[in-house]
Amino acid sequence: MSPEMMHLYEVHDKTIVVVDILRATSCMVTAFAHGVDHIIPVADLEECRNMKATGYITTGERNGEKVEGFDRGNSPFEYTDDVKGKKIAFTTTNGTIAIAKSAGAQEIIIGAFLNLSAVKAHIVKGTNNVLIVCAAWKGKVNLEDTLFAGALIDKLGTSVVTDNDSALIALQLYRNAGTDLVKFLNQSSHVQRLNRLNIHDDIRFCLTADTYNVLPEMIEGRLSLR
Amino acid sequence: MSPEMMHLYEVHDKTIVVVDILRATSCMVTAFAHGVDHIIPVADLEECRNMKATGYITTGERNGEKVEGFDRGNSPFEYTDDVKGKKIAFTTTNGTIAIAKSAGAQEIIIGAFLNLSAVKAHIVKGTNNVLIVCAAWKGKVNLEDTLFAGALIDKLGTSVVTDNDSALIALQLYRNAGTDLVKFLNQSSHVQRLNRLNIHDDIRFCLTADTYNVLPEMIEGRLSLR
Repeated sequence: MSPEMMHLYEVHDKTIVVVDILRATSCMVTAFAHGVDHIIPVADLEECRNMKATGYITTGERNGEKVEGFDRGNSPFEYTDDVKGKKIAFTTTNGTIAIAKSAGAQEIIIGAFLNLSAVKAHIVKGTNNVLIVCAAWKGKVNLEDTLFAGALIDKLGTSVVTDNDSALIALQLYRNAGTDLVKFLNQSSHVQRLNRLNIHDDIRFCLTADTYNVLPEMIEGRLSLR
Repeated sequence: MSPEMMHLYEVHDKTIVVVDILRATSCMVTAFAHGVDHIIPVADLEECRNMKATGYITTGERNGEKVEGFDRGNSPFEYTDDVKGKKIAFTTTNGTIAIAKSAGAQEIIIGAFLNLSAVKAHIVKGTNNVLIVCAAWKGKVNLEDTLFAGALIDKLGTSVVTDNDSALIALQLYRNAGTDLVKFLNQSSHVQRLNRLNIHDDIRFCLTADTYNVLPEMIEGRLSLR
């Protein structure tokens, strides 16, 4: 439910699904659906900024807002045009931390509602145990990432057995959210924060399942299409 | 949702409700309802054992089982007889850690389904912000403590405003659990672990609301009736 819990889990034998619905992993999935060559997630702001000199588009956010001097922000709509064949350096408040803490896993894949079925299909055909890592918000559990975890577990159905209560709670949450996820999420702290930043369209987009059939995977510090 | 998240929250201005439904805080509430003088929660097993020499009843568990050589275990039924006026040294896998991590708060009170309304009444008449600390299981989120958090938030109703998504998730979970909490909890990892230890009666007892109208409070390392 949060990267703060990562040390409680073994990662070396796992397929890890990193999820940061609003909006890092939604942006990443969108970028790959539009032909980006690769993305390097960077935890440090200055390191990200410096990568511009080596041909990277610098992107991401801090506290939900675009970073001064960066090429792009954290709206998925900024990753639909003019990314084909390009390389991106991406830093975010939470998503890049979740990816960094997943180091050492068998596989690290990027999940979002946008590529839900692609993630499911990948898990079903593998044999690894799976850990869904919610990026959360500055360590605190959030509704949207937990909801995605529930959606994925629901979609996996009887092809998996859950072995902890976080998974049960996420599943329960998703099943009770109903069909209107946007309305359900309106009560969340993050959405209320983001509402102030005028991104209703982003939220609607990020909560739409299966817009893209792509599966970004992290290999040696770099996200590429699997 | 777990003591592992405690560092993300300010405690100094808060009333903290510590909850370890199965079974530490349920035992504590039961003991106070039956007249125990005070309880000292102890994180360390040997420290607890040594307190026998100073007149303490030594109690608690490790991994859900009674500790070799201790006077009592972790079933609430062991705290109904012969505790009046006595003092208890209590150590558990999770509950005592949650209490220890709450140090520095304005108030630390002990919550369980057994004294749900007493906890609610206390919060409503105070003005502090409230943090519900789920003891969890070895750091991992569990269903029963989260469910209690949801029950308390539900009972508090419009007298509180929640300010994070953990609270929303707990509330959602409780509202969807229905009236048969025992049945709902049967799916949880902890109950499945405890089922192996034959404690169905304990579970039923620990999930019953408002059996006792007592409010244990932690002051200077010692739990007493408030």
